[in-house]
Amino acid sequence: MTTTQSTDLGSITTAATEAAPLFASMALEDRAALLERIAGNLEAAREELLPLAHAETSLAEARLAGELARTTGQLNLFASVLRDGAYLEVTIDHADPGATPPRPDLRRWLEPLGPVAVFTASNFPFAFSVAGGDTASALAAGCPVVVKGHSGHVELSRRTAQIVAESVQEHGLPAGVFAHVEGRETGVRLVREPAIKAAGFTGSIAAGRRLFDIAVGRPDPIPFYGELSSINPVVISPGAADARASTIAEQLLASVTLGVGQFCTKPGLIFVPTADDLTAQIAQLMGSGAQPGPAKMLNQGILDSFTDGLRNLCSLTGLDIVAGEMTGPGATGATPLVLVTDADGFRANRETLSEECFGPTCVLVRYASSDELIDLLSHLPGALAGCLHVEDSEPFLRSGAFEALRSKVGRVVLNGWPTGLAVSWSMNHGGPWPATTNAMHTSVGATSIRRFLRPVTYQDVAADLLPVALQEGNPLQVLRRVDGRLEAPAST
Amino acid sequence: MTTTQSTDLGSITTAATEAAPLFASMALEDRAALLERIAGNLEAAREELLPLAHAETSLAEARLAGELARTTGQLNLFASVLRDGAYLEVTIDHADPGATPPRPDLRRWLEPLGPVAVFTASNFPFAFSVAGGDTASALAAGCPVVVKGHSGHVELSRRTAQIVAESVQEHGLPAGVFAHVEGRETGVRLVREPAIKAAGFTGSIAAGRRLFDIAVGRPDPIPFYGELSSINPVVISPGAADARASTIAEQLLASVTLGVGQFCTKPGLIFVPTADDLTAQIAQLMGSGAQPGPAKMLNQGILDSFTDGLRNLCSLTGLDIVAGEMTGPGATGATPLVLVTDADGFRANRETLSEECFGPTCVLVRYASSDELIDLLSHLPGALAGCLHVEDSEPFLRSGAFEALRSKVGRVVLNGWPTGLAVSWSMNHGGPWPATTNAMHTSVGATSIRRFLRPVTYQDVAADLLPVALQEGNPLQVLRRVDGRLEAPAST
Repeated sequence: MTTTQSTDLGSITTAATEAAPLFASMALEDRAALLERIAGNLEAAREELLPLAHAETSLAEARLAGELARTTGQLNLFASVLRDGAYLEVTIDHADPGATPPRPDLRRWLEPLGPVAVFTASNFPFAFSVAGGDTASALAAGCPVVVKGHSGHVELSRRTAQIVAESVQEHGLPAGVFAHVEGRETGVRLVREPAIKAAGFTGSIAAGRRLFDIAVGRPDPIPFYGELSSINPVVISPGAADARASTIAEQLLASVTLGVGQFCTKPGLIFVPTADDLTAQIAQLMGSGAQPGPAKMLNQGILDSFTDGLRNLCSLTGLDIVAGEMTGPGATGATPLVLVTDADGFRANRETLSEECFGPTCVLVRYASSDELIDLLSHLPGALAGCLHVEDSEPFLRSGAFEALRSKVGRVVLNGWPTGLAVSWSMNHGGPWPATTNAMHTSVGATSIRRFLRPVTYQDVAADLLPVALQEGNPLQVLRRVDGRLEAPAST
Repeated sequence: MTTTQSTDLGSITTAATEAAPLFASMALEDRAALLERIAGNLEAAREELLPLAHAETSLAEARLAGELARTTGQLNLFASVLRDGAYLEVTIDHADPGATPPRPDLRRWLEPLGPVAVFTASNFPFAFSVAGGDTASALAAGCPVVVKGHSGHVELSRRTAQIVAESVQEHGLPAGVFAHVEGRETGVRLVREPAIKAAGFTGSIAAGRRLFDIAVGRPDPIPFYGELSSINPVVISPGAADARASTIAEQLLASVTLGVGQFCTKPGLIFVPTADDLTAQIAQLMGSGAQPGPAKMLNQGILDSFTDGLRNLCSLTGLDIVAGEMTGPGATGATPLVLVTDADGFRANRETLSEECFGPTCVLVRYASSDELIDLLSHLPGALAGCLHVEDSEPFLRSGAFEALRSKVGRVVLNGWPTGLAVSWSMNHGGPWPATTNAMHTSVGATSIRRFLRPVTYQDVAADLLPVALQEGNPLQVLRRVDGRLEAPAST
């Protein structure tokens, strides 16, 4: 493992390239064990890592403990995905010499792309950082990883990188399987390195778009999986507002202020009926002192962006403050603030309201009718998640708003909130631009491995040259499709 | 169906957008039947289409008949992929209220992306054109299609488009499901249209890169699946050259000259041992008159490019003519020409030799040793296919060359040729740049549908709002993963 400021990037990527074939050809079981080893070593260093993370990010230790558990859980999930083996998409069509034209023996599966660059996030020092989802899924795929550590948690990044590198070494693998580099310009150069075959990124639109443009502007463009920005719309129906205004108000504020609003899944735009007392409930709840006071954000730059964002929102015509306090320049922490507008205000300020304001704030948009709501939703940008709170007794709004949300997001939630992301087989964390640069894939969950794999077909290839997974007798006992028919492994 | 030069592109893409939700929500069986209807209607128009295609492309009618069969076979294969339903990747994780944090009910599948732009190819007037693979896979995915017809087969494109549009209409679907437009600038504008959510392309590097840059340079970048250029390396081992030089020479020339060399899978660079009589065999075979004489290419522009390419090759230092004739300016057809160089000649001219020369020509590269061969292969660009002719008695070269080829291509062939592409479940037609803009996907075969789908996860969504495929009882009887375990449908 090497931590480098900028020197010697070429030798790091060369080492990654050299390690790639061996790492790609490792037995699935061995690669699964590597992921579990990393998880175990991180877990063993828990008492050291959590205070380090807290000191650098100001995130609460309880939250960080949960995030570390999610990170190790993620590595362990990927280990089980490898053992399952269906992710390889093994597909065999036997030769048919009698066909016109004669059909050769064809065997398709997915292979690792090669070295992957991973950019870490400020707001998830574990789960989206050095040993986070992008690294874990790329390693699971069989791709060496070069991580660019985050300036917001330098010491934690270095220590985590050391643990991953030691795990790689303990596993008897070449050091080129994992490296850690630092510095913004190093990151830019990393995306340009010919050895790098794909990149994963979580961060701002500005930084993500810059790196995306470099990745696709290369002489040989590479896939760039960036998660950028999401306003995560939430719709509250008149029936839901009537039936459970106080619960919704409470849950909404909890979701908006969770982790000082520093989640990519934070609800940003809340569509509420004009005729309701939900807005009043929110104001009351926020005035009651039950809500958090000023809280430290991840770092000064993020606090500055938050105050800029609030100032921007408050300068818009047609937006009013519902409750909370303006966090102004010079503040040391962020205070929750809820704003409100109506359909005209939304239409007039759509561009600004479509931008994520990272921090404990959201904008209520009052709609006068179901038709107006559905029209407003049709103008939303892409998002990671969208939520609908609704009663069964409102069939028109229920199906119309659900459909409108679904078409804009990667995850649609009924009577729930966007924050809180299960790492599982069925999770999708992605969505149309600007939520991500590539809505075809997820950055969380079992299928995120697919981002770092490419299909290869073997034609008339002798058994000894075939990868084990493609051999006739299904030695790995994976799900296969043979001559068009699915064959479940014996163990299923 | 509308055929338009440039006017009214906005209304065409608006119609596509409006048709998208209905088309996306069609029952799989209905969409499968639509594909079969298109196949049937094309087949029924066979006697009309084949002469039209021949007149516009000069391709032999037998070849065109095969291509039309492949095109209808492709549509029918996709119908069976839809009926099978595994392509939806249905994944269900039931709620676990006892987990920390409590886990909601999560259901993931793949949904259509939205309207797709398809660019047709000069060299496959059926299989990669108006009703070809990109159109068929996008329609199979549930995406409306706007095809940009090719200037090389205008009448065939129009007639084919009419047949597809009539099939859509007979099926009771809105006309927005399929449209046909014409003109290069219309194509450029199409990729910029906000309504277009992805594009498929087969053609030159210059045109493909231009459109790719537009697609990824949009305010909201879209996936652009371009198949651009491929030199399809073939390695002949010393043992293979010794054992069957005349067969190899014959098959090689057949593959190079098939369809006047106008296949994206044509072998372009052939690595042959220095000490062999293969080169002499090729010269002899080409001198014997058994090889085709001058043959018409698709159009004058392509013939001009071929003569330019040949002149370019022949101007390189260290390249000699093995056999055949130079096709010069003013020729009305292309004549096969085989060139030869050695390792030094390859190294000195690598850039030019890495470019596809579309037409009946190839370059032999003589290597002196296995080590030299493997070094040369490591400098190859990405390609669609790579082939190795080898004997079992050459284990070092066999595994080394196989591995070197495999890492560069989307399909690796043992003791066979790159031309001839089965449309099947296991085919991969893709590869690293410049073979394609995106090595993660195939443009041929069952899995090409995946290019036009995005994952969406439904969280705690009530049964009546869930897509049928995600409902609890598996009403469509598709392969699912439930709580981490594969569940094969009853019929499997």
